[in-house]
Amino acid sequence: MARTAKSRVTLADVAQLAGVSRSAVSRTFTPGASVSAETRVLVERAATELGYRPNILARSLTTGQTRLVGLVANNFKNPAYLEIFDTFTRLLQARGLRTLLINLTDEVDPQRSLDLLLQYQVDAVVVASSTLPVEFSSAFSAAGLPVVHALGRTNEGQYDVVSIDNQAAGALAARRLLASGYTHLGFLGGPESATSTRDRLAGFMSVTDSLADVSVQVYFADGYTFEAGNRAMHDLMEGELAQGYLCGDDMIALGAISALQNTGVRVPDDVGVLGFNNIQMAGWENIRLSTISQPFRRLLELTVERLEIQLKAPEQFKPSITLLPCEVIERDTLKPVV
Amino acid sequence: MARTAKSRVTLADVAQLAGVSRSAVSRTFTPGASVSAETRVLVERAATELGYRPNILARSLTTGQTRLVGLVANNFKNPAYLEIFDTFTRLLQARGLRTLLINLTDEVDPQRSLDLLLQYQVDAVVVASSTLPVEFSSAFSAAGLPVVHALGRTNEGQYDVVSIDNQAAGALAARRLLASGYTHLGFLGGPESATSTRDRLAGFMSVTDSLADVSVQVYFADGYTFEAGNRAMHDLMEGELAQGYLCGDDMIALGAISALQNTGVRVPDDVGVLGFNNIQMAGWENIRLSTISQPFRRLLELTVERLEIQLKAPEQFKPSITLLPCEVIERDTLKPVV
Repeated sequence: MARTAKSRVTLADVAQLAGVSRSAVSRTFTPGASVSAETRVLVERAATELGYRPNILARSLTTGQTRLVGLVANNFKNPAYLEIFDTFTRLLQARGLRTLLINLTDEVDPQRSLDLLLQYQVDAVVVASSTLPVEFSSAFSAAGLPVVHALGRTNEGQYDVVSIDNQAAGALAARRLLASGYTHLGFLGGPESATSTRDRLAGFMSVTDSLADVSVQVYFADGYTFEAGNRAMHDLMEGELAQGYLCGDDMIALGAISALQNTGVRVPDDVGVLGFNNIQMAGWENIRLSTISQPFRRLLELTVERLEIQLKAPEQFKPSITLLPCEVIERDTLKPVV
Repeated sequence: MARTAKSRVTLADVAQLAGVSRSAVSRTFTPGASVSAETRVLVERAATELGYRPNILARSLTTGQTRLVGLVANNFKNPAYLEIFDTFTRLLQARGLRTLLINLTDEVDPQRSLDLLLQYQVDAVVVASSTLPVEFSSAFSAAGLPVVHALGRTNEGQYDVVSIDNQAAGALAARRLLASGYTHLGFLGGPESATSTRDRLAGFMSVTDSLADVSVQVYFADGYTFEAGNRAMHDLMEGELAQGYLCGDDMIALGAISALQNTGVRVPDDVGVLGFNNIQMAGWENIRLSTISQPFRRLLELTVERLEIQLKAPEQFKPSITLLPCEVIERDTLKPVV
């Protein structure tokens, strides 16, 4: 099949039909540029009539902006990422920005990742990961790219971090388990290498350390998956179980619950389980997982806000760390508060 | 914080250090271009030493290629999409192509979507959706963009479709339900407006129509979600239930099972349920959903293969429709084959 390359309508064509200068047409299609309402109407009418579309990539050679934002992710197994991709692409599209999705699963070389981003001249990068080593965000930032690390932890004094307060969340979880009357608590975290895991554990222990009659069992699942949670709980069942567990995420919690139930241990009558993330299926009526909710929507909104500040006023940019509080979602896998 | 714009290493710098022509450097970094092995080594050594990166977007103005592929999706609730995003970004990245993720949830205007794609001058478009109206793919194709519609149905004689054979899958499901000894079959499809639903129903009925002693109950959930499946099954329980249901997808099936179990109906002892998609959680040990598996990996590989043909040899391109067969995954929500 032959493809017919349509002859391209130019900015000059629109200017001529609208009876305005080329500069006025250009400004009409430049987000944030100044143009009178009257001129805008004339230009948009002419552009629609001619089928004119601004060529953003060609324009980027003069403006230095591509309006492309790299979205870097490395976990495509966790259902929480569907919400991240959905919300993030919507927020960016609403601002005339586009999402270049970069999959860094299995990638270990920050430099090679940086090459990808620089070759495509993204205007900025959002790293959406709690597990990608800090060297990646640092490398992107050191190369001069505006970076916001969502779900990150430290900013190395260079870029923006928007995340949840994992230490406070760990403390919140410990207090919630204690409120059920449990005195033998379990911390079934995600991989120990993740800073989010270590921060939550520190917060958890800050609550229990001063309580003489409370013991804590600590164990780490080897991934954020149903299978990893399942394996971990099977391991734990070889010894004495705690009364109530905080799990590294909802997937680990669901795998753990499955292991318990399949061995005849009742949840929450025998053992309580508290998840993390409040993914959609945590609310399903045959699951009803008690869990800790991260304010994902707010987190992503703030991520985009920080991104806009870096893009619009780079000279005023100061690296920041924003930590948001989590909350407990009460459902049916913990004994009620006594 | 001041950003230091590093002085950019140019193609000419690399050519000089390598002692080759600029054209040789350019060809070294152009996928598919001819260059001797000896020259390639010289160029790559010089490029590494200088930290040179080809500027793909600037080059696109001369080559007419941006190496950007638009990935159009409109369903971020279905866990099957995580696998699609993961596999697709990997396959494209391995070929030096990048994924521009376009979220068309709630978008009803093909023209506005086309504007997004054209403004960013994607080289091609993959539509990954079984629900996006055919007008979208048609509009993209009519504008001269190479299009592959994954999970699509018709190609309007213009582009490539790589999908599953939904009619054959419907027939496969009906035969599987009959094999359990069920004579009162249920078709609990996704929204009736989806062509995939209508095709599966046609295949399903093609098997049952000729069987005098078999009856079929047909119902449509109003979305591909747990909640929609749950509501639909609650509706169906107001009347007489069929013995075994084919559901529109695994999420509908899980919602339906939850509704049954919460009303004391045993699965599969009282009612059998067959899902569709074989999402990860269908295999969890406390779910064990019998389902129909789509060959997602193969489907995405073929999608990228068709894309490459359109990109590399547009003059030889002939619109095609490739339909792949599905298979039944036997687990615990159907009575065994009698």
